[in-house]
Amino acid sequence: MPLSVETCLTPELSFQHDFTDKTAVIIDIFRATSCITTGLNHGVVSIKAVSQVEECFPYRQRGYLAAGERDGRKIEGFDLGNSPFEFMSQKGKKIVMTTTNGTQAILKAKGASHVVLGAFLNFDAVAEYIVQKNKNVVLVCAGWKGKYSLEDSLFAGALAKKLFEFHFQANNDDATTSCLLMYERVASNLKEFVALSSHYQRLRHLNVKEDLDYCITFNLMQGVAELQESGEISLFR
Amino acid sequence: MPLSVETCLTPELSFQHDFTDKTAVIIDIFRATSCITTGLNHGVVSIKAVSQVEECFPYRQRGYLAAGERDGRKIEGFDLGNSPFEFMSQKGKKIVMTTTNGTQAILKAKGASHVVLGAFLNFDAVAEYIVQKNKNVVLVCAGWKGKYSLEDSLFAGALAKKLFEFHFQANNDDATTSCLLMYERVASNLKEFVALSSHYQRLRHLNVKEDLDYCITFNLMQGVAELQESGEISLFR
Repeated sequence: MPLSVETCLTPELSFQHDFTDKTAVIIDIFRATSCITTGLNHGVVSIKAVSQVEECFPYRQRGYLAAGERDGRKIEGFDLGNSPFEFMSQKGKKIVMTTTNGTQAILKAKGASHVVLGAFLNFDAVAEYIVQKNKNVVLVCAGWKGKYSLEDSLFAGALAKKLFEFHFQANNDDATTSCLLMYERVASNLKEFVALSSHYQRLRHLNVKEDLDYCITFNLMQGVAELQESGEISLFR
Repeated sequence: MPLSVETCLTPELSFQHDFTDKTAVIIDIFRATSCITTGLNHGVVSIKAVSQVEECFPYRQRGYLAAGERDGRKIEGFDLGNSPFEFMSQKGKKIVMTTTNGTQAILKAKGASHVVLGAFLNFDAVAEYIVQKNKNVVLVCAGWKGKYSLEDSLFAGALAKKLFEFHFQANNDDATTSCLLMYERVASNLKEFVALSSHYQRLRHLNVKEDLDYCITFNLMQGVAELQESGEISLFR
């Protein structure tokens, strides 16, 4: 019996999706899910995603590092911003994190059997995780402030294409088909096309071009970031 | 000064778009905007789009034909359903119409300078209309019950590609870029890929395959369906 892949193109459309008994993949390529994946693969113990800046304070008092951005910029007084390179040197730490888009999307996926974070950085490992869980899948694109974003949808298309090599199919979900077709159009030159995205253009002006190029690199690491029942994100084991 | 093209991927996201002083293009390829375009090009005087079945009755008493569907099927007791071929033989008539998606989307575009209906059937004429109006453009995909649909987004991509030959650009609207890339992927074999859409699959079972193939045919007619200040849709002159 084939399993289905459906895609939620922005969190504003999450009400159209039923997450029950499914694997939810949260996708915020620029940069939350890329940062979290990087951190955990570099020895961060766990990362707690929260929606508001204020929610970070009690965690910080308990020894967590506070990480996050608003409108692409590091939050004043926080230990870390939203650059994946900052997350490479926090071995042994716990982090509490809030971002404009990604952490909000993580919090939307309640009810799913499994919630996992999507990143190009561990693309094959994420696909393998999904195949092993053997559930229907919802790909949740975090977008930008509720709007559709190109880079998250391209990741969804790449992942759908990979899953279709196994026992998964779009099952009449046009959003998934569109992501797949778009990815097929640009796959041979992904970096050039991602540079067309509004998010890339926006962040480019904040001098984070290195971040962006890093975030669209395939398979630099193997650990998969998974939301635990405790509400913390840690590596799937 | 280049003009911008933005795309509203489903009516549920229309709140993210400001229609003020823009040309709005309503797109419901299967089948409302294709039907209306066909009817007006075959001598129908005007078509009034309403959201509820009950709203059709007073118009009918005044001599309008009632047209429409729910879930793809003709409404019981109505004069016409939602097949473009039925709209070819109503010369001189006025029609009141309600459909699951298309007429709802038309009603969302309030505030735009100009509201025009998009169809492959008069593709070049619609593009020429937009260029002549010389305003920023919002492409509104009607979708299916608020969900994203492949055929409407492919039309948006085709139209964006055409407009980019003139003084229009996506201006960092990722939704427009995605429609364009997807269209470029499938342009050489549009009919095969539209057949992947959920709407095509759904309607195919209602024995309207001829309708569907007709609706994705380019440039059979030249008249453009435009929403008038009176609230009726008639040919732009």
